[in-house]
Amino acid sequence: MDPRTEISSLGEFGLIGHLTENNETKNASTVLSVGDDAAVIDHFGRQTVISTDMLVEGIHFDLMYTPLKHLGYKSVVVNLSDIYAMNATPTQILLSIAISNKFSVEALDEFYEGVYAACDKYQVDLVGGDTTTSQRGFVISVTAIGEVAPDSYVKRNGAQVNDLICISGDLGGAFLGLTILEREKKIFEETGAQPDLEDRAYIIGRMLKPEARKDVIEYFAAQDIMPTSMLDISDGLSSEMLHICKQSQVGCVLYEDKLPINEESKDFAYKLELDPTACALSGGEDYELLFTVKQADYEKINANNGLSIIGYITEAAEGKTIITRGGNKHELVAQGWNHLK
Amino acid sequence: MDPRTEISSLGEFGLIGHLTENNETKNASTVLSVGDDAAVIDHFGRQTVISTDMLVEGIHFDLMYTPLKHLGYKSVVVNLSDIYAMNATPTQILLSIAISNKFSVEALDEFYEGVYAACDKYQVDLVGGDTTTSQRGFVISVTAIGEVAPDSYVKRNGAQVNDLICISGDLGGAFLGLTILEREKKIFEETGAQPDLEDRAYIIGRMLKPEARKDVIEYFAAQDIMPTSMLDISDGLSSEMLHICKQSQVGCVLYEDKLPINEESKDFAYKLELDPTACALSGGEDYELLFTVKQADYEKINANNGLSIIGYITEAAEGKTIITRGGNKHELVAQGWNHLK
Repeated sequence: MDPRTEISSLGEFGLIGHLTENNETKNASTVLSVGDDAAVIDHFGRQTVISTDMLVEGIHFDLMYTPLKHLGYKSVVVNLSDIYAMNATPTQILLSIAISNKFSVEALDEFYEGVYAACDKYQVDLVGGDTTTSQRGFVISVTAIGEVAPDSYVKRNGAQVNDLICISGDLGGAFLGLTILEREKKIFEETGAQPDLEDRAYIIGRMLKPEARKDVIEYFAAQDIMPTSMLDISDGLSSEMLHICKQSQVGCVLYEDKLPINEESKDFAYKLELDPTACALSGGEDYELLFTVKQADYEKINANNGLSIIGYITEAAEGKTIITRGGNKHELVAQGWNHLK
Repeated sequence: MDPRTEISSLGEFGLIGHLTENNETKNASTVLSVGDDAAVIDHFGRQTVISTDMLVEGIHFDLMYTPLKHLGYKSVVVNLSDIYAMNATPTQILLSIAISNKFSVEALDEFYEGVYAACDKYQVDLVGGDTTTSQRGFVISVTAIGEVAPDSYVKRNGAQVNDLICISGDLGGAFLGLTILEREKKIFEETGAQPDLEDRAYIIGRMLKPEARKDVIEYFAAQDIMPTSMLDISDGLSSEMLHICKQSQVGCVLYEDKLPINEESKDFAYKLELDPTACALSGGEDYELLFTVKQADYEKINANNGLSIIGYITEAAEGKTIITRGGNKHELVAQGWNHLK
């Protein structure tokens, strides 16, 4: 019998590493290939950034509580977020969908309403795609293209010892929004009771209608800040922080009391007897930007209320740690969403 | 009750038209948007061509008779074909897959072997993508990027009256290859008999391992030929010819006896009591290039044995027709593969 290795035994990043380990670059225009938020392509001296994401019904979204308009919006935004995470400006997208015949044209119109709303908000053009049937379920693939000034793109591997670790917005909200939606779905299925989500608008919005941090990239440009490394938080802070440490060959110290967590997130976490810090560290889909800057940029970062300094970069030998409110040191462990498990 | 319009009532092209009718371009860099084989993006005076396709298990391929290596190869090639159809040279691809846990790492390795074989053959770089799970089935999305000299891209809308209509290679083979594979699958399911496909290698190869016509684009460059319109045959000659006529606002005359059909295709078609001409007109997935050129290029086209002149462009009022061997005139009707029906 042929050997059989389960995909789950490698994990998502292990699998990507395995599948691309012999991937060689042939074109001089390929500036940056697999392994970051986006690829970078040289176009006659200027640079194009390109990234793609696939969203699968039942894995990435549940149509029971995801309005199609929100889904269209989010499908675009999560891809734009990858472009911003390269310090680039998105300009075009391509959108492919596979749909079963359970969807009507009216349903698709709703989905596209969200797609176009995101294109308008972020000033990107929908320039192509593919529309096909599926036997079951809804699959969405978006490719986003962006521009960046020559060699101004920011990778994951540039963090240096003593750099400040910073984050935009707040964390854990999307995970808690998902938790409440899943809970209410279960209650509805069991009892038929309509959910009352009124006082959870913030966290539900974080899940269903995330925004990409265009404003942060614009702030960098206006303030002449060049992050030394950056990525967007799709899998949870711990997982993303470990990516930066691994690729930059450094360690880190994070401070629990510096993690930005919204009051509504905290409140709902306590209600569920969840630790808000754990939600911030491991909850995915916040689409905030995690980045490192030189200490010299401290004042500029501090002057922006939407940005938080949550720690600093250390030598690799010092490990990847988080210091709790009580002063204890813990190893940072990735427990991010692993869709392949 | 809300109105419900079935997607099948619009058809694939009707649906795309419907969903993109209000799609406005916001970026000056968007040179060409939805509606051709690929989009064109201006990068500081030079042009990038980009296209994407989605392949869905059970719709576009059947793993019962499609080796994974071939599937990987074909997934790349069909996208490169779209780039060549713009008279451009592909340089990079992004590949996203959604897979169920029925696939092992070894199975994925086979798929990627085909992907890398195509990347090698066509000298393109795999620069990114996404890997995720699906609840069922295998979904593949490839985005291809290419370069073209300024304003040398060829659209579908430039055909002029008296232009020659040309095609590369031969037609109908992929459809006949699919037909034999489907037939043998049925026999196997009913009787357990192993298929004997030995003497059908050509048409089965046309289906399972198509090539993109890089050589034709290179011939155009070497011979200084600039087609007036071009696209690749994915849905069948009739359907594609009608696209050119519609977008160029012209008519056409095709000659049945000029349609290039391989001997093996003819032989197998007769065996099945199918009309080889119908297979050539309506069979999809040949990935040959259909293009129009000025009459002045007649000698150059004629000098290449791999190219056939199959008709000429007329005024729109003269209709879209094919003249049979017997001298009868028929209206050209699209009966191409409509995955949405």
